[in-house]
Amino acid sequence: MKYLENAGEMLERLEKYGAFIVVSDGEKVNTMTIGWGHFGIACGKPAFSAMIRNSRYTKEFLEKNPEFTVCFPRDASYRSALAFCGSKSGRDFDKIKECSLNLTDSEKISVPGIENCAVFECRVIFKTEMTPENTSPDTAGKWYRDGDYHVIYTGEILNVR
Amino acid sequence: MKYLENAGEMLERLEKYGAFIVVSDGEKVNTMTIGWGHFGIACGKPAFSAMIRNSRYTKEFLEKNPEFTVCFPRDASYRSALAFCGSKSGRDFDKIKECSLNLTDSEKISVPGIENCAVFECRVIFKTEMTPENTSPDTAGKWYRDGDYHVIYTGEILNVR
Repeated sequence: MKYLENAGEMLERLEKYGAFIVVSDGEKVNTMTIGWGHFGIACGKPAFSAMIRNSRYTKEFLEKNPEFTVCFPRDASYRSALAFCGSKSGRDFDKIKECSLNLTDSEKISVPGIENCAVFECRVIFKTEMTPENTSPDTAGKWYRDGDYHVIYTGEILNVR
Repeated sequence: MKYLENAGEMLERLEKYGAFIVVSDGEKVNTMTIGWGHFGIACGKPAFSAMIRNSRYTKEFLEKNPEFTVCFPRDASYRSALAFCGSKSGRDFDKIKECSLNLTDSEKISVPGIENCAVFECRVIFKTEMTPENTSPDTAGKWYRDGDYHVIYTGEILNVR
């Protein structure tokens, strides 16, 4: 399916480097680092599923404007930016500015991408929520001891650039 | 990440032919055809997310034994079996028998695979549920007019053969 041909390679980059998810409410642009995510087919569309913990500032943006880009760096050049964006909150920092990230306009959505990345432009078609009852005890014990579960935003991939 | 290298190819097969998801409660083996699904990284593990509608017999099996295989045919040779298993319920037919499917033992889970397929052995690490409130109106109108939403079973891929 269009946009999914390189899913294996993108998942390899995701594991190796991480990726940026970028969101915007029309005024402010925010980003965070992700290390997890899924590519697939949902509701007849090519899709990317992003896992965002309930506490995240990024979630507030997605609730206002359900569009996002996932930006996969090609190499380790974004290492320090990814470390910063994965450990600091956009509530405390303008991460785009702090990391001197250059944004690039998207073609199908209002949210920009990041230069020198493979940019997947996505619009949410549904979201689902992880809960303690529906998570295996091992997984809950390892990743969710603080109760801060993930919301999963499944976005149709509208464009890749 | 191990087991995800061929995600792009498997998603292509999924779109082109569909795939079998196989479940078992220890006594009975059941299968259904899927055309949607996601490969990715979740909770630090290689994962496959299977979308199963609430009404499906397959769901009853997963609630008893949260293990499944996803079996991707290599070509169109399973066309008639996939059509049968995608339109008939295991409540009415023993689909394995009706379609003369040859099962093959899994190495890491109790649920078998189907011969001449790429078999992904998975154990559920969490499930999430689609709801009308959390689905875009377009998507809900197109796929869920009867209210029979999908439950999404995210399984760790434990083995591929």
